[in-house]
Amino acid sequence: MPEKEDKIIVGIDLGGTGIKIGITDESYEILAQTSIPTNAQRPFEQIVADMGNTALKLLEENGYSVGNCLGVGIGSPGTIDSKNGIVLYSNNIRWEHVPLADELKKYLPLPVYVNNDANCAALGEVARGAARGCANAAFVTLGTGVGGGIVINGSIFEGGHPGGVELGHILNGSEGRKCTCGREDCLEAYASATALIHDAKEMAKQHPESVLWALCEQDLEQMNAKMPFDAAETGDACGKLLVENYIRHLADGITDIANIFRPDIIVLGGGICAQGEKLTEPLNQYLQKNCFGASIAYVPEVVIAENGNDAGIIGAASLVQI
Amino acid sequence: MPEKEDKIIVGIDLGGTGIKIGITDESYEILAQTSIPTNAQRPFEQIVADMGNTALKLLEENGYSVGNCLGVGIGSPGTIDSKNGIVLYSNNIRWEHVPLADELKKYLPLPVYVNNDANCAALGEVARGAARGCANAAFVTLGTGVGGGIVINGSIFEGGHPGGVELGHILNGSEGRKCTCGREDCLEAYASATALIHDAKEMAKQHPESVLWALCEQDLEQMNAKMPFDAAETGDACGKLLVENYIRHLADGITDIANIFRPDIIVLGGGICAQGEKLTEPLNQYLQKNCFGASIAYVPEVVIAENGNDAGIIGAASLVQI
Repeated sequence: MPEKEDKIIVGIDLGGTGIKIGITDESYEILAQTSIPTNAQRPFEQIVADMGNTALKLLEENGYSVGNCLGVGIGSPGTIDSKNGIVLYSNNIRWEHVPLADELKKYLPLPVYVNNDANCAALGEVARGAARGCANAAFVTLGTGVGGGIVINGSIFEGGHPGGVELGHILNGSEGRKCTCGREDCLEAYASATALIHDAKEMAKQHPESVLWALCEQDLEQMNAKMPFDAAETGDACGKLLVENYIRHLADGITDIANIFRPDIIVLGGGICAQGEKLTEPLNQYLQKNCFGASIAYVPEVVIAENGNDAGIIGAASLVQI
Repeated sequence: MPEKEDKIIVGIDLGGTGIKIGITDESYEILAQTSIPTNAQRPFEQIVADMGNTALKLLEENGYSVGNCLGVGIGSPGTIDSKNGIVLYSNNIRWEHVPLADELKKYLPLPVYVNNDANCAALGEVARGAARGCANAAFVTLGTGVGGGIVINGSIFEGGHPGGVELGHILNGSEGRKCTCGREDCLEAYASATALIHDAKEMAKQHPESVLWALCEQDLEQMNAKMPFDAAETGDACGKLLVENYIRHLADGITDIANIFRPDIIVLGGGICAQGEKLTEPLNQYLQKNCFGASIAYVPEVVIAENGNDAGIIGAASLVQI
């Protein structure tokens, strides 16, 4: 294949089990991608060598060289020193103080940017997604936990010290639920998919007459975050109560985020977002009513993320700003 | 008096009842100050004329002219468009869309900066106060309401749209207390001086045997935010319960702020801060235990503001950055 001349970006989505590597154009559209297992138990040098060599191979296979490349962005789980490209601490890959950017430059002698994966996802939705064209956006991801990122004036807002902007760790409920962070009653303990599944299991156990119990085929291990919504859709009282309660907690968390950051838009990511308007409609209603100064001030709209499975690569690539 | 050559700043603290006008040196130390009544019912042009002419007189009386002046900073209550120096909305002075900076330039042809008074107080503590030398600081003021400001990289953080950074309006309690903003259970509804006084009145009414009841001389109208602390100091069960409850709510609010902004330091202002270590000690203990990633990440210290009665002028002056 003859060597191409167009400029591209390498976006790398580092996860606890797999590493996705992609090439995007200057609009962050993915042109090619591949993935490798992380094998997180290896020394980090081996993981980064695999990452670098796989990226080089992907470039070559697609007719590019390092010379085409404007830079490399990496989204990593954990707490990141983005200024120096260091993974300070990541529970998922069990890294501490890993100089990821410098290590990768040994293979890809380019500007390398590293940031937290949720921050990357936020920036990716601004670069090419539901928040396209917005200077200021909040991104909230509803998964195993509740994470997120804030974009202010087109850049990731990181707070004063690494480990800031923990959007899932603001006070939310009052049941004394233990959060994964050690504190009680964080948003994550009520609005994560994990929390919804936990609540749904409790509810189903107590209500063998419910549609919910039928949906999981009388096996609590089969319960997922979609079932409460599906049960509610049929009119099942248990499902309706679960969904109502879940949305109320999430709405309060989102109102806090609006009152603190007053972004142009609030983007929701994570598996639960497949519920679409079943989530955004009541959330927007709540926000219109409860956001500070709602009658006179700007109230951001809540929308669903657009980048889906590509969020990791697009988000990482968007660290390389054009 | 011969004209001086040193550079100075004019800081103006605009309030609903009075306007404080001060001259500071380049370290934001107040060299001279005066005050005039706001008479808020007048057209804004008259108020600003008074403001400008009084500032000119103060300069002259102290041997300065406009030529000595690096700029003018104004702290205003309400929602401010700081980029354009416009008071978008202020309940206290009943202003809407007042072009404050442009109007004042008619009298003081200088760079004029306007920001929200709580934001100014935050910046003032960084410029010359408890957060001196910190690039990143959170300021929380406990008064009639709960307000505050965030300084990131030495500048006021304003969020995406005017009306952001409403630190008093994040979810806190679960009693269904109506907040002044219309929402239920905001931090302000539990951690303002107003909330503490309200709780103390309720408690005293129910406990005529309490020290609290004696302290207010059996007259609930005399209750203030100091009395619960004074009662607690004597071992009074009612006082202790009130203080414990108040601090727990405040601690949760401050933990949220730490988790979201991860500043170098958290500065508390407002009348209740006269309690000093009775506040900061338990708050710091709570934060050390409950802040996200406390065992590995930076945990900000909670301290008491230093600028006291001068906070308005120093904060406003600090908008003019050297």
